[in-house]
Formats: sequence, C-alpha cells, structure tokens
Amino acid sequence: MTETNTQVIFSNRPEGALSESNFEIVQSAIPPAGDGVLRRTIYLSVDPYMRGRMSTVKSYAEPAKLGEPMVGQTVSEVLQSNNPRYRPGDFVVGNDGWQAYAVSEGKGLRKLDPAAAPITTALGVLGVPGLTAYVGLLDIGRPKEGETVVVSAAAGAVGSIAGQIAKIKGCRAVGTAGSDEKCAFVEQELGFDACINYKTDDLGAALKAACPRGIDVYFDNVGGAVLEAVLKRINVHARIPLIGLISQYNVNKPSSGPNLGSLLVNRALIQGMIIFDHFDRMPDFLRDMSQWLREGRVHYREDIIQGLENAPRALMGLFHGENIGKRLVQVAPDPTRKERR
Amino acid sequence: MTETNTQVIFSNRPEGALSESNFEIVQSAIPPAGDGVLRRTIYLSVDPYMRGRMSTVKSYAEPAKLGEPMVGQTVSEVLQSNNPRYRPGDFVVGNDGWQAYAVSEGKGLRKLDPAAAPITTALGVLGVPGLTAYVGLLDIGRPKEGETVVVSAAAGAVGSIAGQIAKIKGCRAVGTAGSDEKCAFVEQELGFDACINYKTDDLGAALKAACPRGIDVYFDNVGGAVLEAVLKRINVHARIPLIGLISQYNVNKPSSGPNLGSLLVNRALIQGMIIFDHFDRMPDFLRDMSQWLREGRVHYREDIIQGLENAPRALMGLFHGENIGKRLVQVAPDPTRKERR
Repeated sequence: MTETNTQVIFSNRPEGALSESNFEIVQSAIPPAGDGVLRRTIYLSVDPYMRGRMSTVKSYAEPAKLGEPMVGQTVSEVLQSNNPRYRPGDFVVGNDGWQAYAVSEGKGLRKLDPAAAPITTALGVLGVPGLTAYVGLLDIGRPKEGETVVVSAAAGAVGSIAGQIAKIKGCRAVGTAGSDEKCAFVEQELGFDACINYKTDDLGAALKAACPRGIDVYFDNVGGAVLEAVLKRINVHARIPLIGLISQYNVNKPSSGPNLGSLLVNRALIQGMIIFDHFDRMPDFLRDMSQWLREGRVHYREDIIQGLENAPRALMGLFHGENIGKRLVQVAPDPTRKERR
Repeated sequence: MTETNTQVIFSNRPEGALSESNFEIVQSAIPPAGDGVLRRTIYLSVDPYMRGRMSTVKSYAEPAKLGEPMVGQTVSEVLQSNNPRYRPGDFVVGNDGWQAYAVSEGKGLRKLDPAAAPITTALGVLGVPGLTAYVGLLDIGRPKEGETVVVSAAAGAVGSIAGQIAKIKGCRAVGTAGSDEKCAFVEQELGFDACINYKTDDLGAALKAACPRGIDVYFDNVGGAVLEAVLKRINVHARIPLIGLISQYNVNKPSSGPNLGSLLVNRALIQGMIIFDHFDRMPDFLRDMSQWLREGRVHYREDIIQGLENAPRALMGLFHGENIGKRLVQVAPDPTRKERR
C-alpha cells in the first residue's frame, strides 16, 4: 500500500477540447475505513460520456464537481470492511472516480467473481459499454434477421459489441472506424462483414458498396458526417439509436445537424439513449453476454494505460481515436493476473 | 355540364419554388363512362405534400408523372355508373387529380353521406389531414394528460386538428403560426392555450414563456428554425412526430438540420410519419373525430378557392402561408349547399 491517496482532481472546466490543465494531481491521506468499506482502485474506466459530465450544459446527470476527484467507474479490491457484505480480498465494481483509494458504506458496489470472467470485463464487455450496445441495438434498433446494421466507432468499446450482437441476430454488420488498423480489427477479429475507414474512404460510395440493400439500423456513436451519409441510404422504417455524438463532444459551439428529409420520407426514427435509464436490463444482458462469451461468439479487446497520473491523457486520447477496444487505466497491480501486463 | 374536360396538367418539374409554369391547362373530351363510373369533380384538395410528389427525389410514392393531370384527392358527384356500387347523384372521395371529370372502374372511391357531414370535410377534418393529425399525435406523440404539446403550422389543416386533439387529451397545447391573424384563430377559435407568431416573436423566449414546464411532444409540420428552438426546450423522453418539413419543400438544395445533442441528452425521439402507412387507423379515427365534431370539441375552418384554373396558385399559396385552415379548390357547384359560396 502506498502511503498516500493519489487523486486526479477535476480542477477546471474545459472550453472546447480537453487538456491536462483541466486536471490536477494531488496527494491526500488514505481515508479510514470507519464503519464502511475501504478499497484500492485497480482499474478505472475512461469513456467518451465523461466529456459531457465535465460541462455545465444541461445533461442527463449533474455536472462533475470541480475540486473533487474526476468521476468514473472503477474495479477495486476491498482492503478493510465493516460492512458484512464485503470482505478483504473481494473485488468490486463501483463509481469511485479517479483516485487510488476510496471509502464508503458500500452502496452502489457490485461484487465480481474473478473466476467467471476477468475483472476488467466489468468495465467493458460485461459492464456499462456492453449493456449500452445490447440495449441500444436490441431495444431501439430492433434488428431483424437479414437486415443491414451500420455501427459507427466500430472499433470502440460499445460499437465493437453492437456489431457482434447484430451478427448474432443474423444481420449484415458494417462498421465505420478511423484507421485501416481499426478496420482490420473490426473485420477480422470481430467478424463484421465490412468496415469503412471514414477518414480515407468516400463515405457515400463506401456505404453504397457495403450496404447493397440499404441500411435498416444505424447504431450511432458519433453523429456528424457519418450520420449524414447514412441518412442518404436508409431504408423505409429504419431505426437509428443515437448513443453518442463523439464527433461533437470537444466542440465548443454545437454545429448544425443533418437534414431530416430522409427521416420523413422513410418514416424512420432517431432515438436518443442514455444507459442510466436501462439498468433494469442488466440481468438479461449479463445472461446473454456471458453465454455469447462462453460460446466464443463475442470477442473483445482491451487497451490498458498504466498509471493513474495518465488518466487525463487516456481520456483525451479517446477523442483522437487512439484506442482499439475498451480503454482502461490500471491504477494498481491486478492480483487476479499471474503476470503484470 | 361543360362541353369539355378541363385538366391542369403537370408539365414541368419545379426547381426550387413552384410557379405557374410548372402547369398547363388543357381541354379534352369528357371520357365516356364505359363499364365504369363517370364523375364530376366538385372539390379538390391542395396539400403541402404535393410539392414532394412533383420532385424526382426518392420519396414514399412515385413522383407525379409529367404530361398527366396533377395528382390529388377529390370529392366528386357520380354522373353515370355501370358499377352497381355507385349511382348517379352519389358523392365520393377519390384520387382523381386536377381535372373536371374523371372515369374509372370505381376502385379507391369511398361513398360519402352528405347528411352526416359537409362533403368538404372528407378532404379535411374527416379526411387525410385529420387522420394525419390523429395518428401522428396519438400513435407517435403519445401525449399524456398534463403534458405540453407544441404544434407548428397550427393554423393549417393538420396542425389545427393536432392541437385540438392534444387539448381533448388533457394537455397544454401551444401553436406556432406565421401571422397574428392566424394566432388569434388558433387561440380563440381552436382553443389552444397559446400561439407564437414565429415571424415576429423571439422564438426561444416565446417558447420558454408559453411552455413553463418544457415540451413533451412536438408535432412538427415545418422543420427548420422552429424545430431547432423546440429542441432546446424539450423534456426528458420527449417525442417528436415529424409530419412535414414545409420550411424546406421549396428549397432546391436541402439545408442542414438541427444539432441533435438535445435528443441524446433527453433520450428523445424524432420519428418520420407518412400517413399512407396508417390507413388501418381510419375506422378508429372516423369514430372518434365524428364524435368530437358532434360534441363541438373540434372546430375547423375551410379556405375555398374558386375555379380549377386557380389550383396552381392555390397550391403555391400554401408555401407562402396564405391559408387559415384547410385549403380546397372548388371546381364545380356543390349541390349539397343551398347557397353558392
């Protein structure tokens, strides 16, 4: 155990793009367990939605507070506990934010079984990103066998899962991503039928070629130019779950959006989704996704950045498309792994 | 009976705004009844959707054909019939287009009872515009008692009905329209709680004042600036039936649309609707709307332009906001009215 609690404090609201100056690293005393549960953070999750929490623009959740550790999900090991539900050595997923140690009564923690799945997956394929893919695709996208599903940010934590669920449901899955390396991953490791590099391909022509029967579902993580190009190729009664607008998160002044004529003519729908509304689907999701993982029908990749002090850069990198798969920050050694990564 | 069949031929596809040069008036022989039903057009309907039918841009229906009478719904009187379902003197609603006489086997005609409701209503409050309001508001908007419903083009054939149904369902109804005269009609004759003149009011401030509890449903006939302003004030889980984009119909190059961030943050939906998908709702609609009319809970106004030769100008005028209520063109005297209007 280190002597102090390292914390990454959210110190300045960003204007436009994030920078390291929005954060400050401080050392404080490790809090006493008291009547609660003291745990050590092993992994923390960095996710695009965090950009929204750093803004004061009206959103689905209170803005992250200045002067406190940056918010976020974590996987931790219990060190001391006076709550009978948790014992030292237990692994838990929680919302402890960007700090090396945390203490609380234990509300909002969920115990993990390291024998069932790697503990990292609780922040990825078996966590909120996986649930987001599951609910967004199945409940809003409602894909039918034989339909064509397009997924943007297809190499990312959410998109990579959404496209694989589309394949499991008998659909043609077409991804978009920002590099040839990502597209190779999407096609070869994840098994999408095609992947379009939106930075180098002619988006309209590539979508036409990859979706010869049009587009029935567009699982949208990005908005912007991809959404605009997709709208020109949607089929009648297409469904567009709007999961993210990552192309706009770092823009100070919101840009205009796509012309909606295609939505009208095709009687299509765009529906925004925030996963916090859908945690009731967690049991169904965990049942299905655990089975798909056991059967080898869903693959995933993790992109683990070492060191809590690198969390700001790890987050910033998401908006530059650095990651393939789910990006995590490793804060302390993972006792469940024989070899340190 | 005049000696010839006057027809308004769709002669040139418009680029941008409509003009009279897109049409040509011709005289031809009145067709013989043959084995079918010969009828005389009394009223024809002019509607914003017709602009879309005049374009070759992919749409929900085949483009209107050049060299043929302009398409559109009609109310007619049967003159001769060799179809046992129709007799001379019957009144029927059909799709005879812009011509004084038409003949067919009789498919697609629906007989009207002039004693039950004025025959003009089959093209308005008891016709496709009314059905559009009913299905768009109830099936896509799904208003709940106490919610706030905003309706654009509130003085028009569809919007005027949508807002009144919202009131019947216990909602606050707020309209937008393009003149003080229209707003007075919307508030005083139709009973909306408020109406905003989008040409003179500060749209954002006026919406804020008129919708103190935010906007739950936006019944959108127009797109453009009103949609953009509404998106800034929607509540969580708002529903936006997209019924028309009249602000863009006469624009040659489609403009961009609204930023969709609010849709995501508020988990709201925009869904395009074309009434042709929903004719199965006609019986429910006719039952409910007939009752509401009998009870005096729905009011309507008609704006009747005299003379088939004025149909092009009547249609063009819709895009300049000339009409209050349902615009019709009277082609021949209405035998059901004691006094000629």
